[in-house]
Amino acid sequence: MKVKVGVSARHVHLTKEDVNILFGKNYILTKKADLSQFGQYACNEQITLIGAKNTIKNVRVLGPERNQTQVEISKTDSYKLGINPPVRNSGDLDNAALITIVGPCGQITKKAAIIAARHLHVNKQEQIKYGLINKKNVSIKVNNEKGGILNNVSIRVDDNYSYEVHLDTDDANAFLIKNGDEVEIIIED
Amino acid sequence: MKVKVGVSARHVHLTKEDVNILFGKNYILTKKADLSQFGQYACNEQITLIGAKNTIKNVRVLGPERNQTQVEISKTDSYKLGINPPVRNSGDLDNAALITIVGPCGQITKKAAIIAARHLHVNKQEQIKYGLINKKNVSIKVNNEKGGILNNVSIRVDDNYSYEVHLDTDDANAFLIKNGDEVEIIIED
Repeated sequence: MKVKVGVSARHVHLTKEDVNILFGKNYILTKKADLSQFGQYACNEQITLIGAKNTIKNVRVLGPERNQTQVEISKTDSYKLGINPPVRNSGDLDNAALITIVGPCGQITKKAAIIAARHLHVNKQEQIKYGLINKKNVSIKVNNEKGGILNNVSIRVDDNYSYEVHLDTDDANAFLIKNGDEVEIIIED
Repeated sequence: MKVKVGVSARHVHLTKEDVNILFGKNYILTKKADLSQFGQYACNEQITLIGAKNTIKNVRVLGPERNQTQVEISKTDSYKLGINPPVRNSGDLDNAALITIVGPCGQITKKAAIIAARHLHVNKQEQIKYGLINKKNVSIKVNNEKGGILNNVSIRVDDNYSYEVHLDTDDANAFLIKNGDEVEIIIED
Protein backbone atom coordinates (compact mmCIF):
# COMPACT_ATOMS: atom_id res chain seq x y z
CA MET A 1 0.00 0.00 0.00
CA LYS A 2 1.82 3.07 -1.30
CA VAL A 3 1.01 6.75 -1.01
CA LYS A 4 2.52 9.99 -2.30
CA VAL A 5 3.99 12.44 0.20
CA GLY A 6 3.06 16.10 0.37
CA VAL A 7 5.73 17.96 2.33
CA SER A 8 4.16 20.85 4.27
CA ALA A 9 6.44 23.83 4.72
CA ARG A 10 5.58 26.35 7.43
CA HIS A 11 2.39 28.26 6.61
CA VAL A 12 -0.60 30.07 8.09
CA HIS A 13 -4.36 29.85 7.67
CA LEU A 14 -6.20 33.10 8.43
CA THR A 15 -9.71 34.14 9.32
CA LYS A 16 -11.40 36.81 7.21
CA GLU A 17 -11.12 39.13 10.21
CA ASP A 18 -7.37 38.55 10.56
CA VAL A 19 -6.86 39.04 6.80
CA ASN A 20 -8.46 42.48 7.26
CA ILE A 21 -6.10 43.33 10.14
CA LEU A 22 -2.94 42.06 8.42
CA PHE A 23 -3.61 43.18 4.82
CA GLY A 24 -6.20 45.92 5.14
CA LYS A 25 -9.98 46.24 5.31
CA ASN A 26 -11.90 44.13 2.74
CA TYR A 27 -8.63 42.70 1.42
CA ILE A 28 -9.06 39.56 -0.70
CA LEU A 29 -6.32 36.92 -0.67
CA THR A 30 -4.97 36.19 -4.15
CA LYS A 31 -4.22 32.70 -5.45
CA LYS A 32 -0.66 31.85 -6.43
CA ALA A 33 -1.11 28.09 -7.02
CA ASP A 34 -3.57 25.32 -6.31
CA LEU A 35 -2.53 22.74 -3.72
CA SER A 36 -3.11 19.01 -4.05
CA GLN A 37 -6.13 19.05 -1.71
CA PHE A 38 -9.32 20.23 -3.45
CA GLY A 39 -10.10 23.94 -3.00
CA GLN A 40 -6.89 24.69 -1.08
CA TYR A 41 -4.36 27.11 -2.55
CA ALA A 42 -1.12 28.91 -1.81
CA CYS A 43 -1.60 32.68 -1.79
CA ASN A 44 0.73 35.34 -3.09
CA GLU A 45 0.51 36.90 0.35
CA GLN A 46 3.22 36.25 2.92
CA ILE A 47 3.52 37.24 6.57
CA THR A 48 6.24 37.42 9.23
CA LEU A 49 6.15 35.27 12.37
CA ILE A 50 7.57 36.63 15.63
CA GLY A 51 8.25 34.43 18.66
CA ALA A 52 9.88 35.13 22.01
CA LYS A 53 13.38 34.82 20.54
CA ASN A 54 13.37 35.44 16.84
CA THR A 55 11.55 36.17 13.60
CA ILE A 56 10.79 34.13 10.48
CA LYS A 57 9.98 36.15 7.35
CA ASN A 58 8.21 35.23 4.10
CA VAL A 59 5.80 32.68 5.55
CA ARG A 60 3.16 31.64 3.02
CA VAL A 61 -0.54 32.27 3.60
CA LEU A 62 -2.81 29.42 2.44
CA GLY A 63 -6.36 30.04 1.25
CA PRO A 64 -9.27 30.08 1.46
CA GLU A 65 -9.93 31.81 4.78
CA ARG A 66 -10.83 29.53 7.69
CA ASN A 67 -12.90 30.02 10.81
CA GLN A 68 -9.79 30.19 12.99
CA THR A 69 -6.28 31.45 12.40
CA GLN A 70 -3.71 28.65 12.58
CA VAL A 71 0.09 28.78 12.26
CA GLU A 72 1.77 25.49 11.29
CA ILE A 73 5.51 25.29 11.88
CA SER A 74 8.13 22.60 12.43
CA LYS A 75 9.98 21.85 15.67
CA THR A 76 13.06 23.36 14.01
CA ASP A 77 11.12 26.59 13.40
CA SER A 78 9.87 26.56 17.00
CA TYR A 79 13.45 26.51 18.37
CA LYS A 80 14.34 29.46 16.16
CA LEU A 81 11.24 31.41 17.20
CA GLY A 82 11.64 30.48 20.87
CA ILE A 83 8.15 29.04 21.34
CA ASN A 84 6.91 25.59 22.29
CA PRO A 85 3.89 24.61 20.18
CA PRO A 86 2.09 21.30 20.77
CA VAL A 87 1.60 18.59 18.14
CA ARG A 88 -2.00 18.94 16.99
CA ASN A 89 -4.36 17.89 14.25
CA SER A 90 -5.39 20.79 12.04
CA GLY A 91 -8.27 22.67 13.64
CA ASP A 92 -7.31 21.70 17.21
CA LEU A 93 -5.69 24.74 18.84
CA ASP A 94 -5.89 23.43 22.41
CA ASN A 95 -2.84 24.89 24.21
CA ALA A 96 -1.49 26.27 20.93
CA ALA A 97 1.57 28.51 21.40
CA LEU A 98 1.35 32.29 21.48
CA ILE A 99 2.71 33.85 18.32
CA THR A 100 2.69 37.21 16.58
CA ILE A 101 1.77 37.44 12.89
CA VAL A 102 2.82 40.59 11.07
CA GLY A 103 1.35 41.74 7.75
CA PRO A 104 1.85 44.93 5.72
CA CYS A 105 -1.10 46.68 7.45
CA GLY A 106 -1.11 45.35 10.98
CA GLN A 107 -0.32 42.53 13.35
CA ILE A 108 -2.08 40.03 15.59
CA THR A 109 -0.86 38.05 18.61
CA LYS A 110 -2.75 34.89 19.52
CA LYS A 111 -2.43 31.30 20.65
CA ALA A 112 -2.38 29.86 17.15
CA ALA A 113 0.91 28.00 16.65
CA ILE A 114 1.01 24.21 16.35
CA ILE A 115 3.22 21.48 14.95
CA ALA A 116 0.89 19.67 12.55
CA ALA A 117 0.44 15.99 13.37
CA ARG A 118 1.40 13.61 10.59
CA HIS A 119 -1.75 12.78 8.66
CA LEU A 120 -3.07 10.79 5.72
CA HIS A 121 -5.75 12.32 3.49
CA VAL A 122 -8.08 9.59 2.27
CA ASN A 123 -11.15 9.80 0.02
CA LYS A 124 -14.06 7.34 0.22
CA GLN A 125 -12.71 5.32 -2.69
CA GLU A 126 -9.31 4.71 -1.09
CA GLN A 127 -10.95 4.20 2.30
CA ILE A 128 -12.96 1.25 0.98
CA LYS A 129 -10.09 -0.07 -1.16
CA TYR A 130 -7.64 -0.18 1.75
CA GLY A 131 -10.03 -0.56 4.71
CA LEU A 132 -8.77 2.62 6.38
CA ILE A 133 -10.71 4.00 9.37
CA ASN A 134 -11.25 7.72 9.94
CA LYS A 135 -9.18 9.16 12.85
CA LYS A 136 -7.25 5.90 13.41
CA ASN A 137 -3.45 5.92 13.03
CA VAL A 138 -1.24 4.25 10.47
CA SER A 139 2.54 4.25 10.13
CA ILE A 140 4.72 5.18 7.18
CA LYS A 141 7.77 3.17 6.15
CA VAL A 142 10.72 4.75 4.36
CA ASN A 143 13.46 2.69 2.71
CA ASN A 144 16.66 4.66 2.22
CA GLU A 145 19.96 5.54 3.92
CA LYS A 146 18.08 7.46 6.62
CA GLY A 147 14.96 5.34 6.50
CA GLY A 148 12.71 4.03 9.22
CA ILE A 149 9.12 4.20 10.37
CA LEU A 150 7.00 7.22 11.24
CA ASN A 151 4.21 6.35 13.69
CA ASN A 152 1.03 8.21 14.59
CA VAL A 153 -0.05 9.20 11.10
CA SER A 154 -3.70 10.15 11.57
CA ILE A 155 -6.21 9.03 8.94
CA ARG A 156 -8.62 11.75 7.73
CA VAL A 157 -11.42 10.64 5.45
CA ASP A 158 -13.36 13.10 3.27
CA ASP A 159 -14.91 12.79 -0.18
CA ASN A 160 -13.00 15.82 -1.36
CA TYR A 161 -9.57 14.60 -0.25
CA SER A 162 -6.82 13.48 -2.56
CA TYR A 163 -5.05 10.37 -1.33
CA GLU A 164 -1.79 11.77 0.09
CA VAL A 165 0.24 11.70 3.32
CA HIS A 166 1.29 15.08 4.75
CA LEU A 167 4.58 15.34 6.62
CA ASP A 168 6.31 18.45 7.90
CA THR A 169 9.77 19.53 6.76
CA ASP A 170 11.45 18.00 9.83
CA ASP A 171 10.05 14.56 9.04
CA ALA A 172 10.77 14.96 5.33
CA ASN A 173 14.34 16.14 5.84
CA ALA A 174 15.17 13.58 8.55
CA PHE A 175 14.08 10.82 6.15
CA LEU A 176 15.42 12.43 2.95
CA ILE A 177 11.88 12.54 1.54
CA LYS A 178 10.95 15.03 -1.19
CA ASN A 179 7.52 16.29 -2.15
CA GLY A 180 5.90 13.71 -4.42
CA ASP A 181 7.98 10.74 -3.23
CA GLU A 182 6.12 7.48 -2.59
CA VAL A 183 6.18 5.80 0.81
CA GLU A 184 4.65 2.62 2.20
CA ILE A 185 1.69 2.57 4.60
CA ILE A 186 1.72 0.12 7.50
CA ILE A 187 -1.48 -0.56 9.44
CA GLU A 188 -0.84 -0.19 13.20
CA ASP A 189 -2.25 -2.78 15.60
CA MET B 1 18.31 -1.72 25.88
CA LYS B 2 18.34 2.04 26.36
CA VAL B 3 20.84 4.69 25.30
CA LYS B 4 21.21 8.44 25.71
CA VAL B 5 20.98 10.66 22.66
CA GLY B 6 23.58 13.25 21.73
CA VAL B 7 22.06 15.68 19.23
CA SER B 8 24.72 16.89 16.80
CA ALA B 9 24.18 20.42 15.55
CA ARG B 10 25.99 21.50 12.40
CA HIS B 11 29.76 21.73 12.96
CA VAL B 12 33.16 21.47 11.31
CA HIS B 13 36.34 19.54 12.00
CA LEU B 14 39.49 21.19 10.65
CA THR B 15 43.00 20.14 9.75
CA LYS B 16 45.90 22.04 11.32
CA GLU B 17 46.63 23.46 7.86
CA ASP B 18 43.07 24.73 7.41
CA VAL B 19 43.08 26.25 10.93
CA ASN B 20 46.11 28.25 9.81
CA ILE B 21 44.33 29.47 6.67
CA LEU B 22 41.06 30.34 8.44
CA PHE B 23 42.39 31.75 11.72
CA GLY B 24 45.98 32.72 10.95
CA LYS B 25 49.44 31.13 10.97
CA ASN B 26 50.20 29.00 14.05
CA TYR B 27 46.73 29.68 15.45
CA ILE B 28 45.69 27.30 18.24
CA LEU B 29 42.00 26.40 18.63
CA THR B 30 40.67 27.23 22.12
CA LYS B 31 38.38 24.96 24.13
CA LYS B 32 34.93 26.21 25.05
CA ALA B 33 33.49 22.97 26.48
CA ASP B 34 34.24 19.26 26.58
CA LEU B 35 31.92 17.01 24.57
CA SER B 36 30.62 13.66 25.75
CA GLN B 37 33.11 11.69 23.65
CA PHE B 38 36.57 11.51 25.27
CA GLY B 39 39.05 14.15 24.06
CA GLN B 40 36.50 15.92 21.82
CA TYR B 41 35.58 19.53 22.54
CA ALA B 42 33.61 22.48 21.23
CA CYS B 43 35.88 25.41 20.40
CA ASN B 44 35.25 29.08 20.92
CA GLU B 45 36.00 29.50 17.22
CA GLN B 46 33.18 29.70 14.69
CA ILE B 47 33.18 29.86 10.91
CA THR B 48 30.76 30.74 8.11
CA LEU B 49 29.61 28.20 5.54
CA ILE B 50 28.85 29.29 1.97
CA GLY B 51 26.99 27.08 -0.50
CA ALA B 52 25.71 27.71 -4.03
CA LYS B 53 22.62 29.51 -2.75
CA ASN B 54 23.14 30.85 0.73
CA THR B 55 25.29 31.31 3.82
CA ILE B 56 25.12 29.93 7.37
CA LYS B 57 26.99 31.93 9.97
CA ASN B 58 28.27 31.03 13.45
CA VAL B 59 29.02 27.38 12.79
CA ARG B 60 30.96 25.77 15.64
CA VAL B 61 34.47 24.36 15.17
CA LEU B 62 35.11 21.11 17.07
CA GLY B 63 38.54 20.19 18.35
CA PRO B 64 41.08 18.74 18.31
CA GLU B 65 42.31 19.11 14.73
CA ARG B 66 41.82 16.08 12.45
CA ASN B 67 43.67 14.78 9.44
CA GLN B 68 40.92 15.95 7.09
CA THR B 69 38.52 18.87 7.17
CA GLN B 70 34.91 17.73 7.46
CA VAL B 71 31.69 19.77 7.51
CA GLU B 72 28.67 18.05 9.08
CA ILE B 73 25.29 19.57 8.30
CA SER B 74 21.65 18.48 8.22
CA LYS B 75 19.48 18.01 5.12
CA THR B 76 17.64 21.18 6.22
CA ASP B 77 20.95 23.09 6.19
CA SER B 78 21.81 21.62 2.79
CA TYR B 79 18.58 23.03 1.24
CA LYS B 80 19.40 26.45 2.68
CA LEU B 81 22.99 26.33 1.42
CA GLY B 82 21.97 24.92 -1.96
CA ILE B 83 24.27 21.90 -1.89
CA ASN B 84 23.60 18.16 -1.96
CA PRO B 85 25.86 16.33 0.50
CA PRO B 86 25.77 12.54 0.78
CA VAL B 87 25.01 10.61 3.99
CA ARG B 88 28.39 9.40 5.24
CA ASN B 89 30.08 7.97 8.29
CA SER B 90 32.52 10.40 9.86
CA GLY B 91 35.87 10.22 8.05
CA ASP B 92 34.35 9.06 4.74
CA LEU B 93 34.34 12.04 2.37
CA ASP B 94 33.65 10.02 -0.79
CA ASN B 95 31.62 12.35 -3.07
CA ALA B 96 31.32 14.94 -0.27
CA ALA B 97 29.73 18.20 -1.41
CA LEU B 98 31.76 21.25 -2.34
CA ILE B 99 31.55 23.94 0.31
CA THR B 100 33.33 27.16 1.23
CA ILE B 101 34.44 27.74 4.83
CA VAL B 102 35.19 31.32 5.82
CA GLY B 103 37.21 32.32 8.89
CA PRO B 104 38.46 35.70 10.09
CA CYS B 105 41.77 35.33 8.22
CA GLY B 106 40.92 33.42 5.08
CA GLN B 107 38.75 30.89 3.36
CA ILE B 108 38.90 27.43 1.86
CA THR B 109 36.70 25.66 -0.70
CA LYS B 110 36.73 21.88 -0.77
CA LYS B 111 34.64 18.74 -1.07
CA ALA B 112 34.08 18.36 2.66
CA ALA B 113 30.33 18.53 3.37
CA ILE B 114 28.41 15.44 4.49
CA ILE B 115 25.22 14.55 6.34
CA ALA B 116 26.51 12.43 9.21
CA ALA B 117 25.03 8.93 9.27
CA ARG B 118 23.18 8.03 12.46
CA HIS B 119 25.63 6.22 14.72
CA LEU B 120 25.97 4.55 18.10
CA HIS B 121 29.18 5.03 20.09
CA VAL B 122 29.93 1.86 22.04
CA ASN B 123 32.82 1.04 24.37
CA LYS B 124 34.12 -2.49 24.92
CA GLN B 125 32.13 -2.88 28.14
CA GLU B 126 28.77 -2.09 26.49
CA GLN B 127 29.75 -4.07 23.41
CA ILE B 128 30.14 -7.24 25.48
CA LYS B 129 27.12 -6.48 27.69
CA TYR B 130 24.76 -6.03 24.73
CA GLY B 131 26.47 -8.18 22.08
CA LEU B 132 26.87 -5.27 19.66
CA ILE B 133 29.05 -5.72 16.58
CA ASN B 134 31.31 -2.99 15.20
CA LYS B 135 30.05 -1.42 11.92
CA LYS B 136 26.74 -3.34 11.99
CA ASN B 137 23.49 -1.39 12.11
CA VAL B 138 20.88 -1.12 14.84
CA SER B 139 17.61 0.81 14.94
CA ILE B 140 16.35 3.33 17.46
CA LYS B 141 12.78 3.36 18.73
CA VAL B 142 11.11 6.55 19.94
CA ASN B 143 7.80 6.54 21.83
CA ASN B 144 6.04 9.89 21.67
CA GLU B 145 3.50 11.85 19.62
CA LYS B 146 5.91 11.95 16.69
CA GLY B 147 7.58 8.65 17.48
CA GLY B 148 8.73 5.83 15.25
CA ILE B 149 11.86 3.95 14.30
CA LEU B 150 15.14 5.25 12.92
CA ASN B 151 16.98 2.60 10.89
CA ASN B 152 20.61 2.40 9.79
CA VAL B 153 22.24 3.50 13.04
CA SER B 154 25.86 2.39 12.59
CA ILE B 155 27.64 0.81 15.57
CA ARG B 156 31.14 2.18 16.28
CA VAL B 157 33.15 0.40 18.93
CA ASP B 158 36.17 2.00 20.60
CA ASP B 159 37.58 1.76 24.12
CA ASN B 160 37.46 5.53 24.46
CA TYR B 161 33.83 5.92 23.44
CA SER B 162 31.02 6.87 25.78
CA TYR B 163 27.88 4.83 25.16
CA GLU B 164 25.67 7.26 23.25
CA VAL B 165 23.69 7.49 20.01
CA HIS B 166 24.36 10.52 17.80
CA LEU B 167 21.51 11.94 15.72
CA ASP B 168 21.47 15.11 13.68
CA THR B 169 19.06 17.98 14.33
CA ASP B 170 16.66 16.82 11.59
CA ASP B 171 16.24 13.43 13.22
CA ALA B 172 16.02 14.95 16.69
CA ASN B 173 13.47 17.59 15.69
CA ALA B 174 11.33 15.23 13.60
CA PHE B 175 11.06 12.91 16.63
CA LEU B 176 10.87 15.65 19.29
CA ILE B 177 14.09 14.33 20.85
CA LYS B 178 16.28 16.58 23.00
CA ASN B 179 19.94 16.17 23.86
CA GLY B 180 20.21 13.70 26.76
CA ASP B 181 16.89 11.95 26.13
CA GLU B 182 16.86 8.16 26.37
CA VAL B 183 15.77 6.01 23.43
CA GLU B 184 15.47 2.27 22.89
CA ILE B 185 17.87 0.23 20.73
CA ILE B 186 16.46 -2.47 18.46
CA ILE B 187 18.78 -5.04 16.93
CA GLU B 188 18.18 -5.28 13.17
CA ASP B 189 17.98 -8.70 11.51
